[in-house]
Amino acid sequence: MIKLVLLDVDGTLTDPGRLISTRAVVAIRKAQKDGIIVSLASGNVVPVMYGIKTFVGVKAPVFAENGGAMFQNDEISTFFPMDMPKKLFDRLESEGKLKGILSNRWRLTSMAYVLSGASPEEITAEAHKDGLVTVNSGYSWHLLNKGQDKGFALEKLKEAYSLDYDEILVMGDAYNDAAMFKENVIKVVPSNAEDSLKSMADHILKEKDGNGVAEILKKIRSF
Amino acid sequence: MIKLVLLDVDGTLTDPGRLISTRAVVAIRKAQKDGIIVSLASGNVVPVMYGIKTFVGVKAPVFAENGGAMFQNDEISTFFPMDMPKKLFDRLESEGKLKGILSNRWRLTSMAYVLSGASPEEITAEAHKDGLVTVNSGYSWHLLNKGQDKGFALEKLKEAYSLDYDEILVMGDAYNDAAMFKENVIKVVPSNAEDSLKSMADHILKEKDGNGVAEILKKIRSF
Repeated sequence: MIKLVLLDVDGTLTDPGRLISTRAVVAIRKAQKDGIIVSLASGNVVPVMYGIKTFVGVKAPVFAENGGAMFQNDEISTFFPMDMPKKLFDRLESEGKLKGILSNRWRLTSMAYVLSGASPEEITAEAHKDGLVTVNSGYSWHLLNKGQDKGFALEKLKEAYSLDYDEILVMGDAYNDAAMFKENVIKVVPSNAEDSLKSMADHILKEKDGNGVAEILKKIRSF
Repeated sequence: MIKLVLLDVDGTLTDPGRLISTRAVVAIRKAQKDGIIVSLASGNVVPVMYGIKTFVGVKAPVFAENGGAMFQNDEISTFFPMDMPKKLFDRLESEGKLKGILSNRWRLTSMAYVLSGASPEEITAEAHKDGLVTVNSGYSWHLLNKGQDKGFALEKLKEAYSLDYDEILVMGDAYNDAAMFKENVIKVVPSNAEDSLKSMADHILKEKDGNGVAEILKKIRSF
């Protein structure tokens, strides 16, 4: 039985224009009333996730920076350091190879960038030299510590709520969601998901993004 | 004719538990499609307002920190300095008279606090000595520069869109919304508004908070 649902935000709760699905918001509130734990994991920053958690009414901890930081009970927890991502980001930026995005000012454990004068592979190779990794969230690129991904967030939740993998359902649309698509976890994608993620999924939904969230939450509640 | 609607967030778009009204979200999106400009003014911080703007899909600039900062086109503008609010906050905190709240780490032009060991009047008197003001948003107290209020945000919007006061409708529920309840502006309150604000209003809605937003936007669109 599914006890916890871990959702990506951009492209899963939101449409391509980043508008949140009001159907998904209503479905999350209903699912929680039925005792299903709902959590969110995003590449976005803590204050934005704090806002979504508050205004949507998500009760479980939520994860920012691809699992690097968690917000719950008015407290921020960080699980990875900022020093190496920031150091490499600063060097590559000064060399004109990438550009930062606005939300970097609020980041605690990673840096986000768009490409500028270097290929994604070149940046990734530089990251690997420093023991770092890169991931594309569909919205921007992220420079992260090794092990800092949405799979890490999943493990934190599994531990916090003492769950088995098969009691957890994950849903995402983009490559940075692959890390939470673990064996024995129930893996769901909306119809707009990237093909690479679809090929890993247990269920491909009929509906797109937020409507897909409403579709799967309704299905879970009907079991 | 109403061309611009300026809305408070907490208690206006949201219920007392801070859950955003999905009816209000849908109504805002519809109103914008009909050409009505919608903006938000809150005591909350820029990244939270950036999140609401993005996920609700508010197209006009939005205001944080009671008018102290504005977000639009991936850019943050600040209209007031942080030095005096921060200096007084630090002193009063060290004297045990107030406590900061989590979101202070993201503030740029003001500080927010809850009371601790001093009366609201005592803090306000200290603020006045430094040429500062205080306001209660219903959610927390704010230490602000003189002139930093939602009326300032209203003037910025009026100027940016070349509007007359009677083309602007404002809606809020709490005392920190009073500054935008100016003469000739259309002043609306949800049924849950504070009495002091109700007494200033042109229209008291039948519905509460976010349902009130949906009610008034529907009325405007039907003219």
